[in-house]
Amino acid sequence: MSNTFGSFFRVTTFGESHGPMIGAVIDGIESNLPLDVGRIQKELDRRRPAQNEFESQRKEQDRIEIVSGVFEGRTTGTPVAILIRNTDQHSNDYENLKDVYRPGHADETYEARYGVRDYRGGGRASGRETAARVAAGAVAKQVLESKGIAIESRIISIHGRKENFDEVLEEAKCKGESVGGVLECTVKGMPKGIGEPVFDKLDAYIAHAVMSIGAIKGIEFGSGFSSELLYGSESNLPCNAGGILGGISDGNDIGFRVAVKPTPSIAKPQPMKTRDGGMREVRIEGRHDVCICLRIGPVVEAMTAIAVLDQLYARTGR
Amino acid sequence: MSNTFGSFFRVTTFGESHGPMIGAVIDGIESNLPLDVGRIQKELDRRRPAQNEFESQRKEQDRIEIVSGVFEGRTTGTPVAILIRNTDQHSNDYENLKDVYRPGHADETYEARYGVRDYRGGGRASGRETAARVAAGAVAKQVLESKGIAIESRIISIHGRKENFDEVLEEAKCKGESVGGVLECTVKGMPKGIGEPVFDKLDAYIAHAVMSIGAIKGIEFGSGFSSELLYGSESNLPCNAGGILGGISDGNDIGFRVAVKPTPSIAKPQPMKTRDGGMREVRIEGRHDVCICLRIGPVVEAMTAIAVLDQLYARTGR
Amino acid sequence: MSNTFGSFFRVTTFGESHGPMIGAVIDGIESNLPLDVGRIQKELDRRRPAQNEFESQRKEQDRIEIVSGVFEGRTTGTPVAILIRNTDQHSNDYENLKDVYRPGHADETYEARYGVRDYRGGGRASGRETAARVAAGAVAKQVLESKGIAIESRIISIHGRKENFDEVLEEAKCKGESVGGVLECTVKGMPKGIGEPVFDKLDAYIAHAVMSIGAIKGIEFGSGFSSELLYGSESNLPCNAGGILGGISDGNDIGFRVAVKPTPSIAKPQPMKTRDGGMREVRIEGRHDVCICLRIGPVVEAMTAIAVLDQLYARTGR
Amino acid sequence: MSNTFGSFFRVTTFGESHGPMIGAVIDGIESNLPLDVGRIQKELDRRRPAQNEFESQRKEQDRIEIVSGVFEGRTTGTPVAILIRNTDQHSNDYENLKDVYRPGHADETYEARYGVRDYRGGGRASGRETAARVAAGAVAKQVLESKGIAIESRIISIHGRKENFDEVLEEAKCKGESVGGVLECTVKGMPKGIGEPVFDKLDAYIAHAVMSIGAIKGIEFGSGFSSELLYGSESNLPCNAGGILGGISDGNDIGFRVAVKPTPSIAKPQPMKTRDGGMREVRIEGRHDVCICLRIGPVVEAMTAIAVLDQLYARTGR
Repeated sequence: MSNTFGSFFRVTTFGESHGPMIGAVIDGIESNLPLDVGRIQKELDRRRPAQNEFESQRKEQDRIEIVSGVFEGRTTGTPVAILIRNTDQHSNDYENLKDVYRPGHADETYEARYGVRDYRGGGRASGRETAARVAAGAVAKQVLESKGIAIESRIISIHGRKENFDEVLEEAKCKGESVGGVLECTVKGMPKGIGEPVFDKLDAYIAHAVMSIGAIKGIEFGSGFSSELLYGSESNLPCNAGGILGGISDGNDIGFRVAVKPTPSIAKPQPMKTRDGGMREVRIEGRHDVCICLRIGPVVEAMTAIAVLDQLYARTGR
Repeated sequence: MSNTFGSFFRVTTFGESHGPMIGAVIDGIESNLPLDVGRIQKELDRRRPAQNEFESQRKEQDRIEIVSGVFEGRTTGTPVAILIRNTDQHSNDYENLKDVYRPGHADETYEARYGVRDYRGGGRASGRETAARVAAGAVAKQVLESKGIAIESRIISIHGRKENFDEVLEEAKCKGESVGGVLECTVKGMPKGIGEPVFDKLDAYIAHAVMSIGAIKGIEFGSGFSSELLYGSESNLPCNAGGILGGISDGNDIGFRVAVKPTPSIAKPQPMKTRDGGMREVRIEGRHDVCICLRIGPVVEAMTAIAVLDQLYARTGR
Repeated sequence: MSNTFGSFFRVTTFGESHGPMIGAVIDGIESNLPLDVGRIQKELDRRRPAQNEFESQRKEQDRIEIVSGVFEGRTTGTPVAILIRNTDQHSNDYENLKDVYRPGHADETYEARYGVRDYRGGGRASGRETAARVAAGAVAKQVLESKGIAIESRIISIHGRKENFDEVLEEAKCKGESVGGVLECTVKGMPKGIGEPVFDKLDAYIAHAVMSIGAIKGIEFGSGFSSELLYGSESNLPCNAGGILGGISDGNDIGFRVAVKPTPSIAKPQPMKTRDGGMREVRIEGRHDVCICLRIGPVVEAMTAIAVLDQLYARTGR
Repeated sequence: MSNTFGSFFRVTTFGESHGPMIGAVIDGIESNLPLDVGRIQKELDRRRPAQNEFESQRKEQDRIEIVSGVFEGRTTGTPVAILIRNTDQHSNDYENLKDVYRPGHADETYEARYGVRDYRGGGRASGRETAARVAAGAVAKQVLESKGIAIESRIISIHGRKENFDEVLEEAKCKGESVGGVLECTVKGMPKGIGEPVFDKLDAYIAHAVMSIGAIKGIEFGSGFSSELLYGSESNLPCNAGGILGGISDGNDIGFRVAVKPTPSIAKPQPMKTRDGGMREVRIEGRHDVCICLRIGPVVEAMTAIAVLDQLYARTGR
């Protein structure tokens, strides 16, 4: 529970934003599978910040190191462990946040849950943690691709705008604000008959996986929240199912959308609760993302890949 | 996996719509808790069909029988097993469906997954299965209430209408159609600090639980899909978090909405795929729900209660 | 945890010795498998008491009832639920035990664990619970047999005697005592390459399954506790491995032995701790087994079958 | 499954004998616990080879590095990840073993299970893997000690000898052989009422944990295999229970013994199966342990600590 996801293809992650490294241990992968390290690295590069002017200018290098489970270029069936060193932490940026709870962040809730917290950049609750997910997801993607299954995502809306994203991003940046959006994710080549009802229906399982990404506030499959506008005879059309019926894939592409909230760390000062019960206006120093949508795609794809592969293995074994 | 949900408060269900009974086994409940059987029954009565003109006229009696785990009115800490006999099955209604796949149902996908299916009313994929969830959820609710936590749901929209539901229901019924809607669910009295990040964040876990209900197509917490319309400084306001930050409860009420699709079984004839690859126009005989929203509330509450209690136990033990 | 065993072939049991019934829910069984109910019944008959003069004269009928997961004689892939009604409980036999803790039983520890206990015959800790294991194990056995794997057990020693069991049994009975023994269990036709190292080595997993039977005090595989008498070059001979190396089956029969303690319920009076901290000499009324070895074989086989099938499915899927 | 043990205090290990490092990730530890790194190191030093003339002369340094889950000397409640670099691998020693299966080792079974194997020293099946267990177990021990629970082990027999171990060890060494023995392990200060019946009885759970150590061939609790020599009235005495009744601790010390087989790697040449189906006499080069009993104590204690703490948390939460 908690830091492990999956039953058959099982991913465990560890590490904090300002510790020496983060990592992922993958248990249950099939043996004898060639693993392309370059392609894992490529997925991490997609997630990395500082690739354009609207992203945080942190210089995370995110070089992966595989330290077990691979022998002579192929998986051995034993755990694949991947390490990613943290190289560009500015712990000093966080000194002024030691005694306040950043709004929209997990600062206050972690302290309530654990009685202690690593105030340097969110520790385990940091977006940094998602790099380990992307590494594990990239492995899952390679397994899936060897079976003809591909996962893709694209931004369909930012701050209510369907196109011309740069304009809304520019405006938000000027205001010292951040914005959210909606992503669409598609699983292509999905065979019919995968999914574990009753409680682990494929859509419920993907929802669990994807909603566990910090910034995601909602998920909908197929016609989703618009279903209520349809009559039964319309809703029953295959195009509205999202590729899953009764929790089992129906042979069509799986399609779902996720709601991404505006990044809670913004440039402009905000009122913050203090540990002693007061309020104080504080500015979060450091480097900010105007819109996390630009980088969250690989994370959404990674969690989807892990969930789908786990349920595939549940049926086929390894 | 599959027919069990939860790690600490763990619910396993069994039974098909047209078998002799359905049931639930609850493992991990604290001992010495007085269990009010009448109140479990009441939750089942809320879910039961045929309570008004828009609901299926099946006369399910849904009398629960507790056969283990309770001694002299109190839980013993051993598994609580609850049986519910099936009493009003009309297996004959399904004879003409033996060789077709009902659209919007799990008929075809179950056959793909298992190579066999119980064609009598959906078998395990039937909405009937949710009665076992409601029974188990009613037990979870009693445990939660003993700790000051209450779960409530209400319909906020049917077929796009925020009020005057009867009108749209009447219209759909006349047309031999069904309609969907949106429900809102609230967890009140939730203590701060409950939730198991990273992968089992409280919202991800509730999403898993609730999305495992057949008719649900989407879920959103707090500002959900509207988050993209907000700026970061607005999205950071406590009212938009839905009571959960970083996967841990923040002490406010937890609030989420779910999308309910129109019931796939409708009165008017529909084109259906046949087992031999053709198409045929078939009418689903029997008794139909115009809108499952009217009965799904207790199921949503039940799954929420199970998920919340499981995570509460994860922190506090039993 | 606790009342569920297995990850892929997963068995959950419920029910107490003096409640209305006990039962088992099996999740994860492959679909389309013909299930022979008569043979499940036969396994239960092997475990049933009162088959000779040395066994408890309780007249348990142990008629099984399958209430889900089977359609037209074959498994559907959904949970197989089996109920066994309790028919010959003499609750009155236990009135005088209400305020004492029977030595060698779980009376005192259950009360410490749960703060409450069902004093009527041990409740959930009763040997009665093993009937549900035998039912689930009989299903596992049928699946294994369809794959050419058979599980057998035999008594190799009672009260230190390798033969002439009747003599030692007669003597113990006269004294109002009970005796223990050693059983050997063999898994025949086991394919090479089954087992899930590191922590779920096949022998460790079987040990877990079998040691969870109340009366078992020890287990050894292959040369077991005699291994220390061998030199490495001797211990390395295949005959000493017990059919498992590094936690994975090596293609030979799997062989292990278990130590069965004397039944703690004996006819002669014993000093017992009382709930208020004193001691009292009490006689356990009712019907006793002189030696549980005569009936425990089917239980050992059942748990072995469940463990082996679970690990087989882990590799092959379902 | 497989490379993870535990439900509440959950340990995942990774790494092979001849890869760059091995490691352990511990999930579910309570927060705010001071962690003494020096004492973890000390446990690893106890397990390290080359401490006397009868142990392998490998110079493993086993310096631990904690890379997450600890902030300012205390646990944060997030995963504790521990890395141990491999420093003294002699991969060349294994070149002549590439095409043979060492008897008593997992070479052949791993190849059957995974279709591939890391022939350099057993890879994941190597005794080296136990260093990660000892590190995780040392953490569990510290948590237990903070609750007044201590775990100790001692050798009670080597090659059938109860004392004068040096003599039998010397003799075995001269012959190029290895020998096994029996260890006894005690859990002191165990509170009454810990254990999760039915299937996860405390003794069954410890058996699973301890039997997952490669060299262990058997385990017995309390009077164990000698139980059959007792009458019921004797077996019922508290001293024979091993501190556990009905799967729940009874408040006495928990006591069990384990059978350790002779190390399969011996100095003298042995006939070995070859990959092409023949036989060949081969000598295993490198540095050997005459008796693994001298170093296995910390591993047995570690697995016991992990199992006991997991069940303690199951009751009390974290």
